[in-house]
Amino acid sequence: MSESWSFLDGFETNFRPLVVIELAKDTKKETIEWFTKRIVDKKANGGAQLLVKPLVMENRDENIYLVGASNLRLLLGAETVGLVKECNDNSMRTFTYSSRKTFKDFADDNHNFLTMAECQYIIKHELENLRAEDEKMIPGYPQAKLYPGKSIVRRLLTSGILVQIFPLHDREELKKLRHSWYGRVKVGYQPLDEIRCYFGETIALYFGFLEYFTFALIPMAVIGIPYYVFAWEDYDKYVMFATFNLLWSTVILEVWKRICAIMTYRWGTLLMKRQFEEPRPGFHGVLGINPVTGRKEPLYSSIKRQIRIYLVSLPFVCLCLYFSLYVMMIYFDLEQWALDYHEENGSNFSSLMLFVPSIIYAVVIEIMNRIYRCAAEFLTSWENHRLESSYQNHLILKVLVFNFLNCFASLFYIAFVLFDMKLLRQSLATLLITSQILNQFAESLLPYWLQKRHKRRMKKHICSLKTDTDLSLVEQVSLEKEMGTYSGTFDDYLELFLQFGYVSLFSCVYPLAAVFAVLNNITEIYSDALKMCRVYKRPFAEPTANIGVWQLAFETMSVISVVTNCILIGMSPQVNALFPDSKMDLILTVALAEHSLLAIKFIMAFVIPDKPRDIQIKLAKLEFESIEALKQQ
Amino acid sequence: MSESWSFLDGFETNFRPLVVIELAKDTKKETIEWFTKRIVDKKANGGAQLLVKPLVMENRDENIYLVGASNLRLLLGAETVGLVKECNDNSMRTFTYSSRKTFKDFADDNHNFLTMAECQYIIKHELENLRAEDEKMIPGYPQAKLYPGKSIVRRLLTSGILVQIFPLHDREELKKLRHSWYGRVKVGYQPLDEIRCYFGETIALYFGFLEYFTFALIPMAVIGIPYYVFAWEDYDKYVMFATFNLLWSTVILEVWKRICAIMTYRWGTLLMKRQFEEPRPGFHGVLGINPVTGRKEPLYSSIKRQIRIYLVSLPFVCLCLYFSLYVMMIYFDLEQWALDYHEENGSNFSSLMLFVPSIIYAVVIEIMNRIYRCAAEFLTSWENHRLESSYQNHLILKVLVFNFLNCFASLFYIAFVLFDMKLLRQSLATLLITSQILNQFAESLLPYWLQKRHKRRMKKHICSLKTDTDLSLVEQVSLEKEMGTYSGTFDDYLELFLQFGYVSLFSCVYPLAAVFAVLNNITEIYSDALKMCRVYKRPFAEPTANIGVWQLAFETMSVISVVTNCILIGMSPQVNALFPDSKMDLILTVALAEHSLLAIKFIMAFVIPDKPRDIQIKLAKLEFESIEALKQQ
Repeated sequence: MSESWSFLDGFETNFRPLVVIELAKDTKKETIEWFTKRIVDKKANGGAQLLVKPLVMENRDENIYLVGASNLRLLLGAETVGLVKECNDNSMRTFTYSSRKTFKDFADDNHNFLTMAECQYIIKHELENLRAEDEKMIPGYPQAKLYPGKSIVRRLLTSGILVQIFPLHDREELKKLRHSWYGRVKVGYQPLDEIRCYFGETIALYFGFLEYFTFALIPMAVIGIPYYVFAWEDYDKYVMFATFNLLWSTVILEVWKRICAIMTYRWGTLLMKRQFEEPRPGFHGVLGINPVTGRKEPLYSSIKRQIRIYLVSLPFVCLCLYFSLYVMMIYFDLEQWALDYHEENGSNFSSLMLFVPSIIYAVVIEIMNRIYRCAAEFLTSWENHRLESSYQNHLILKVLVFNFLNCFASLFYIAFVLFDMKLLRQSLATLLITSQILNQFAESLLPYWLQKRHKRRMKKHICSLKTDTDLSLVEQVSLEKEMGTYSGTFDDYLELFLQFGYVSLFSCVYPLAAVFAVLNNITEIYSDALKMCRVYKRPFAEPTANIGVWQLAFETMSVISVVTNCILIGMSPQVNALFPDSKMDLILTVALAEHSLLAIKFIMAFVIPDKPRDIQIKLAKLEFESIEALKQQ
Repeated sequence: MSESWSFLDGFETNFRPLVVIELAKDTKKETIEWFTKRIVDKKANGGAQLLVKPLVMENRDENIYLVGASNLRLLLGAETVGLVKECNDNSMRTFTYSSRKTFKDFADDNHNFLTMAECQYIIKHELENLRAEDEKMIPGYPQAKLYPGKSIVRRLLTSGILVQIFPLHDREELKKLRHSWYGRVKVGYQPLDEIRCYFGETIALYFGFLEYFTFALIPMAVIGIPYYVFAWEDYDKYVMFATFNLLWSTVILEVWKRICAIMTYRWGTLLMKRQFEEPRPGFHGVLGINPVTGRKEPLYSSIKRQIRIYLVSLPFVCLCLYFSLYVMMIYFDLEQWALDYHEENGSNFSSLMLFVPSIIYAVVIEIMNRIYRCAAEFLTSWENHRLESSYQNHLILKVLVFNFLNCFASLFYIAFVLFDMKLLRQSLATLLITSQILNQFAESLLPYWLQKRHKRRMKKHICSLKTDTDLSLVEQVSLEKEMGTYSGTFDDYLELFLQFGYVSLFSCVYPLAAVFAVLNNITEIYSDALKMCRVYKRPFAEPTANIGVWQLAFETMSVISVVTNCILIGMSPQVNALFPDSKMDLILTVALAEHSLLAIKFIMAFVIPDKPRDIQIKLAKLEFESIEALKQQ
């Protein structure tokens, strides 16, 4: 490999800025010189062999650098990160520079063979893998220690010298994408392949899931409407609706796996080999030898981490859960008070007052969710996980459990302690609708408005009100660097997860929930698209092959909803009327139905293959080829 | 690769027979010549480059050939099958001929670097991969069609020309193994590593599981004894015992995965790459192009197979299940008749008669299981699965469902329809003990006795009564080729699975079941060992990394046992007495307890890692090395 880099001496004439690096304003000269030298230095000398240009801004002392790379460098980088692209024979293969001619659309002068998002991902990967060699510290900052093999960029980030790295938007592409995505009012699918080209697989997969989930909810919504319109209260109809919902939710989650496999196969990520995971930036410990890599890196005892998880985090989470239940009890006192007040006065105002506790509670839930989220992030970070994936899993678990209880505890209480179906229906509607409105507002509209105002001010500051596409590079960078940072798909999935809970947990009590969910998701697609395109900085593309732990979360929710729906049906007066003599027979029947439904669910999940047959064959073909190739060696 | 084979021209002087090939008595000369030529031919000419010697038997017209291979050939074969061996630095690595010097105990003159079982596995693999080139048919047999790429040995087998292929016993090694395994009466672990060296991983893993499972049952047996001795009938004690059992069974199944990983890592099979699976011998179809390999092979439409599975096999299985239930009802009539007879007469004879229906039923169950087994094998074979693994999975599923119902339906009926705990206990004991005795007899002692008798007759026939180790090769082969063929670990696991059912499904009613299971398993280890060493032909070693679908089967059983035990506890008079007023509260409490136990089970299975930390690190290290190696390339 090392020879191939020698082609790359010197700058190319057509420098295309891809990634922006912002250093702290007071960064020392020697640090900047050392850092940029390391970035442009040859691979053989331990550099990243990228291109760097300082961005000269008038009257401002900011240290902003643009990073790019020659086309050849990007192709070699694509091999390093293991990108999978389509070949001329329509099969997907891992890209290698030596076999480049066999890939579809490859030509030496075609600079669009790699999408811009892929180029930016490659540059990010190369920057993050820029490792210290003999340096003991970052030049100019003796407190920022380095050791052989430590990622320089991560150390610069943790010591505050590097403020941020972000990829640049491509104004032309973005305009096209916006137009085809949400620019015109139309009924149709989202341009997922274009989204993937621009934002990468993780985000495209989220939008794919959102769209799929919305379509999947439509049958539930359609069946739910007549229940509301004709006020059906028949036992058999409710049982049918609930049974349909439960089996349907299993089917949609299984089918999603297949659709996900089809999409990620087309995108190449299904075949991408998992890269070896480096420690996450925040991980700290005593310097030692990693038993896996044999490299020097900070080590942290797994037992200490277990102690922190089980003796601190777990009790804290339990405490928070208890607190959440306590707040719930206050809500019920308030509810009772409002009811009493209405009964005493009976005015229009007092009947409005009836909704106040629910709305307050919905707002309080949202606030508590957000505060707890911060605490969970702090705690999980303090648990000092070595890997980003492990950090994410622990964070997701903490947040999921709390949000689940926080959002649904009151509904469980109403349903299974108060046995008040009317109140349940009312609370469900209030909670669902309030949380949807709050979310849409807090997530997209508010940041959008802030961003708009800021942009206007910025443009005034630059003293030229041009249209977006005419902005100079300097103006574009100074606008984009102030935009908010998209924190990942976590919150978006969480919102969908809670929505799935509202729809499925009590579906037999409030069939209209699916209708609201569908309506919300249609606007959600647009507001999320707006958020991605207009509010936030462009995020780095992240290759991914599936929605990860969320699949498990949704499946768990669907199991819990079998239990709740069976109990709700068992409690309904219509079903009770069928067993006038013996409550015992009723409960036994319900328990039997529940166990049968669960068994059917598991059998269905087992029988439906996770990947469609043609994808299975394609994967088997590649595996066979690699076995044969190994034999030939 | 192709050059390396040129070392191997000609026979070596020290021919060591490893595998026996028996051809039909009337096989044509030209066929034999062609077949042996293909076996000894060079790799470059499409041969297997093995050594073949005819076994000359006096006065007999049998076509028996001994197959061996030079040491170099075996080492190259070890690379082809992807054997994993221990290196000098104690890590496990895939063996390659070029890196042979880095492996522990490797020396050019050390012919024991590969165990005999490994050598035999390599020869079997090479023989099975001997493929037709331009031949349109087997010479001399125009009806036995061949096409390029068809495995010659499989066609010879299906057309009846090849009677059997089996590996030879090593009398010396076997004697040593017998001695350390069951030769002396001692308390201690089995010599699993030696068993693995002699019989291969699949069989060693079965004995490992049997031993582990026996040890794991001991706590249940120990706790169960006082319940029987002191006739404890207290509610809280039973609840404690059942709860312990349920959680314990989860723990043992999870811990087994870890122990299995430790063992198979040591044996190298945990790291072995899965080979591409060829169609199973019985698979037939229209000749076409396999979409995965691009090779010519018979194809069979997946839809046709689905139709056979869902429209023929499934209804047939349901019919058998119905028939099994019908037989069960007859048993209850008989039981009733015996009870009436006893009440009328009241003699000793009539009280003995009470046990007769149970014993008859136990025998009938065993017979039905065996008949059904044949039917299931026929049906699954008729379903025409392409892969042996898929065939096995469908067979196991069919047999498991039927055996489960057949063995446990009567107990379920007694427990949950008749509510007769005394009868349940009695039936459980009868079924458990009868089936154990029958199994031990049918499985080992009967074949052993037949084999002994046959051997004595054979020896008389050869007219010399020598001790085992002094037998000539001719005598050894003619003895071994008449021995029964071990049909795999299926029946052994099935027996354990049913035993696990008897122990766990009704554990709170009959705590003594675990005691009987432990006693049975201790003798089972000895009788199975006897069976392997003395009764059957030596089986080919099969590398495997886990117990496969049986893990899932045992886990499913453990989930079902949570449900049954909770119901049994809920039905006990002691628990009923706790809820004198409301049966509803009782049932709700039981349902709550059941759901909590199930939730705890799933969380435990999720939290306990499947592989111990040091194995995880070792695996990660190898993965990291291979990623690094790819980067260097």
